[in-house]
Amino acid sequence: MKNLPDKTVERLSQYRRALLVCLADNKMHIFSHELAGLIHITPVQVRRDIILIGYSGTLRKGYDVRELVSLIGKIIDTEEGLRACIVGVGNLGRAIIRYFKDKRTKLVITAAFDTNPEKVKCVFSGVRCYPIEQLESVIREQDISIAILTVPGEVAASVAETLEKAGIRGIINYTPTPLNVSEKIYLGEYDMITSLEKAAYFVKNNRGE
Amino acid sequence: MKNLPDKTVERLSQYRRALLVCLADNKMHIFSHELAGLIHITPVQVRRDIILIGYSGTLRKGYDVRELVSLIGKIIDTEEGLRACIVGVGNLGRAIIRYFKDKRTKLVITAAFDTNPEKVKCVFSGVRCYPIEQLESVIREQDISIAILTVPGEVAASVAETLEKAGIRGIINYTPTPLNVSEKIYLGEYDMITSLEKAAYFVKNNRGE
Repeated sequence: MKNLPDKTVERLSQYRRALLVCLADNKMHIFSHELAGLIHITPVQVRRDIILIGYSGTLRKGYDVRELVSLIGKIIDTEEGLRACIVGVGNLGRAIIRYFKDKRTKLVITAAFDTNPEKVKCVFSGVRCYPIEQLESVIREQDISIAILTVPGEVAASVAETLEKAGIRGIINYTPTPLNVSEKIYLGEYDMITSLEKAAYFVKNNRGE
Repeated sequence: MKNLPDKTVERLSQYRRALLVCLADNKMHIFSHELAGLIHITPVQVRRDIILIGYSGTLRKGYDVRELVSLIGKIIDTEEGLRACIVGVGNLGRAIIRYFKDKRTKLVITAAFDTNPEKVKCVFSGVRCYPIEQLESVIREQDISIAILTVPGEVAASVAETLEKAGIRGIINYTPTPLNVSEKIYLGEYDMITSLEKAAYFVKNNRGE
């Protein structure tokens, strides 16, 4: 299968999230309009995505939830799993570590980094914190592919440079500073101000979604 | 101007973020390809969005940064400002409060809520924390329009119900539980697992962005 569009990948992740809630509720089949309702998009969009990944449901029962979860897993997850690290163990860094704990088995946060000597060598929700000077060596030793950046904005660019040198393959940037990295590296930019400004715009224009 | 598409609003917020960095660097004009490069999209997309909001630059100098910042402000911000609150003052809630502090004058977090008696009456980065029982009354008194939800997933649905009763107009959901709210309310769903799963997919398929 060739690369799926960005937004489809995002939605597949959201479908799986909703489908796992269904499974926990013992709901074994789901129609496209039900799945659409759970994540607030149109049934047409759902059907288009599911066709794109080569799956189809039955007219009478809809999609088989377990089959769909397993197929999405095959597309998004890697067989051998991927390792991620958190750079910057402030409130946001700690929140993300806790949030991911035990959520996905194929995607694990294995290390954290900080400059604060009091945080270094601490273990946050099972994840050990290393001094930032060991960024390159730990990333190589633990074969970490993805870095989640939660450092202060002022140092984001220089940390990203070190990550690049260490051979990181993806960066998720939660700092307020937009980054410039090599084309080879996947870069996800998540500015939390954007989420609030978007809400403000639609609230102001009195539109629900 | 009629309602802009979701994604355009998101990008306008990102343009402003990048343009404010330019202003701080004393860069007063910018070409569409430069702005595009700063946020990793195509120049065509930038030009399309800017035309959509009725602005144009000059061939020789590009866009006037200050004019564009001010126009985006008129579109996204409200004259009188909007107030937001944080529900759930854990690590993520505190991170968001600190993150927004002094960032935007037209969009202010004025209250926080929690069930923990030790947090109640504390002030986090200038924002006072109230007991969750006062959610409805404080939202009405302070005329809060937007709630940022950072409570544990198990209580997200019941808190959303209370927010709805209190007349909230927008909810930004950072919990792992997808919500169902009335059509009249703007709902932004931000599951942090999606950001990591998307990165994992593209890293696995060896594609930068």
